[in-house]
Amino acid sequence: MSDAPHGRIPFDASMTTISVDAMGGDYGPEAVVGGCAISASRNSDIAFLLHGDESVLKALVARESALADRVHIIHSPGVVSMEDKPAQIMRRGRDTSMWSAVTALRDGQAQAAVSCGNTGALMAVSMLRLRKLPGVHRPAIACLWPSHGPYGYNTMLDVGADVRADEESLLHYALMGSAYFRNAFGAVHPRVGLLNVGTEEHKGRAEIKEAARLIADAAEVGRYEFVGFVEGNDIPSAHVDVIVTDGFTGNVALKTGEGTAKLMGDVLRTELERSLFSKLGGLFAMRPLKRMKKRLDPRLANGGVFLGLNGTVVKSHGSADATGVSSAIKLAFTLAQSGFQDRMAERISAVSDALQERLLKATDDAGTGPLAAPRSTSDGTDQA
Amino acid sequence: MSDAPHGRIPFDASMTTISVDAMGGDYGPEAVVGGCAISASRNSDIAFLLHGDESVLKALVARESALADRVHIIHSPGVVSMEDKPAQIMRRGRDTSMWSAVTALRDGQAQAAVSCGNTGALMAVSMLRLRKLPGVHRPAIACLWPSHGPYGYNTMLDVGADVRADEESLLHYALMGSAYFRNAFGAVHPRVGLLNVGTEEHKGRAEIKEAARLIADAAEVGRYEFVGFVEGNDIPSAHVDVIVTDGFTGNVALKTGEGTAKLMGDVLRTELERSLFSKLGGLFAMRPLKRMKKRLDPRLANGGVFLGLNGTVVKSHGSADATGVSSAIKLAFTLAQSGFQDRMAERISAVSDALQERLLKATDDAGTGPLAAPRSTSDGTDQA
Repeated sequence: MSDAPHGRIPFDASMTTISVDAMGGDYGPEAVVGGCAISASRNSDIAFLLHGDESVLKALVARESALADRVHIIHSPGVVSMEDKPAQIMRRGRDTSMWSAVTALRDGQAQAAVSCGNTGALMAVSMLRLRKLPGVHRPAIACLWPSHGPYGYNTMLDVGADVRADEESLLHYALMGSAYFRNAFGAVHPRVGLLNVGTEEHKGRAEIKEAARLIADAAEVGRYEFVGFVEGNDIPSAHVDVIVTDGFTGNVALKTGEGTAKLMGDVLRTELERSLFSKLGGLFAMRPLKRMKKRLDPRLANGGVFLGLNGTVVKSHGSADATGVSSAIKLAFTLAQSGFQDRMAERISAVSDALQERLLKATDDAGTGPLAAPRSTSDGTDQA
Repeated sequence: MSDAPHGRIPFDASMTTISVDAMGGDYGPEAVVGGCAISASRNSDIAFLLHGDESVLKALVARESALADRVHIIHSPGVVSMEDKPAQIMRRGRDTSMWSAVTALRDGQAQAAVSCGNTGALMAVSMLRLRKLPGVHRPAIACLWPSHGPYGYNTMLDVGADVRADEESLLHYALMGSAYFRNAFGAVHPRVGLLNVGTEEHKGRAEIKEAARLIADAAEVGRYEFVGFVEGNDIPSAHVDVIVTDGFTGNVALKTGEGTAKLMGDVLRTELERSLFSKLGGLFAMRPLKRMKKRLDPRLANGGVFLGLNGTVVKSHGSADATGVSSAIKLAFTLAQSGFQDRMAERISAVSDALQERLLKATDDAGTGPLAAPRSTSDGTDQA
């Protein structure tokens, strides 16, 4: 557990290494190290680079037998707070655990990174250190949403990387979101829906109607099925796997879902505590209520994934406990093993090239035929 | 109950008359007439103009003793379906119950209108027949949202009249929403929040930052308190009464809330039916669960109000049953009695004038002082 210079990988090549920012969450490094321990006890192929205050982390790691020989600590004393502005961290954040965690990923010491820290700062540091994938204008944040769907979760993106998205960005989100969903859940042909205020073709904003055409055209290249427009009440539905929207709308929808679930939980609790008879009912219904909570528990769907960068970064919820952190680590591990980044980059680049060509030819040819499928992704042999 | 020409009011002047489109809802005129009967039995000051197929309505009304001498039927055989496009109805909808219901309001035969029909068509017909209030660019639809707040509900607008809103429209929504909330709930100084992706000043889109300045400046004229930016999870919170946003975001948020509540309800039901023990728990917890349902029941918060028109139109949910329709009628009655339309119009006009003046003077004076308060609304004696 001694400090090593960036560039050396301290683990066996058979291990998948996750670079973990141990300092940013609301519950401090205890919850993060606890999450690593849960993951390590369940998965013998995982190892960790832990970034943060070395003396603190050493003591915490020593308490967890599951972490013996599975952790390498990289000392980085600075902490990014929830109040820090992204610009501040980009200028003065080089000594922070967040910066160090992303840098280790960039340097190839780890295959994915996890942080519970400030989302804006993490995105800024990730953009600066990892750079965008070729062809991507703006990265996106994808969240998981408890759903009626076959995998128990749908994904929605963007939920906050950018407050605007033009039609080409929405197309990229469809490509990135379907690649992510396919690799996180083993869903061969994810169903992509575009969030709108109605499912009729004439509804919505101009860029959304244009995006619908682009996303439909790129379905073959992207290896998804486009189900057309979906509405807010479809987000948890079984009819769609990947919900595409701009980061403003997606962020509001995500937080609205959280707020509604919390209101319902609060009201249910109040009602169950109102009388002795109600309390008795609550006692009898405790197991089903617990199962409901587990099914809808945001900790178990923990992990916003940054898509469109040269590297997989998972943003764990700031208020995640050890269970939540472990869930984010599991997601990072699954994605790191899938190697989906390269194929996703290939598809985005192919679709972007086709789109540029079409725009150049637009005066001669106003047609909207399918975008050309690159040979490397149309042979049907890869899963990513 | 004979047919009368538009223009004559068949009821005593002490009655508040609601013009009701009886044909548009999913459950047909039975639910609508049933809703009128519930309201009539609870409120002796209410009377109805019922628009729809006369023979059908006559038979339904005859079954409800509470409606004796409280209903006047206006024969209008055409029905607006959920599939009809607004433009179709504006061209060929003159014989419909919706058109007739709005026209009766315009002609002063009623003090408010209620319809369960197609929202887009109802907005189009209302715009055409009632016209916008002076100074209002675009009307808005305000919904009620079950909340932790002192009145059990918050309001949000716009939830779908327009997919875009510039800063001046957002300002108008703040003025209209606070006037509505004050008069619907008797809240003297409603707290207005502007929906954004974060509560920090630097976050969000440019028009939202500008709108925040305008809404803050107009707080005195509008007789509201501006609490600044709020996020999706604040929509049901006790910190805000009126949530201002554009119609795209508002519509997505509203439907996301519905979808989340439905998912939770579905999961809870499945869990309670899973085993005999669970079923027993469900049985014991039935009363608290019913109370929760009642507290969060969308039927009891039924009624999207169209704001910014020369007349109060309440859009009841298409799937409202008699209880839901009665709730929309109660809201229409409360607003009709308050006479808030005139004062709202005065405030919007005053704020718009001040804004125009400021824009004209912008080159000389880049200041952002408070917008001028018109004499008639600053004396503190009116409640509207």
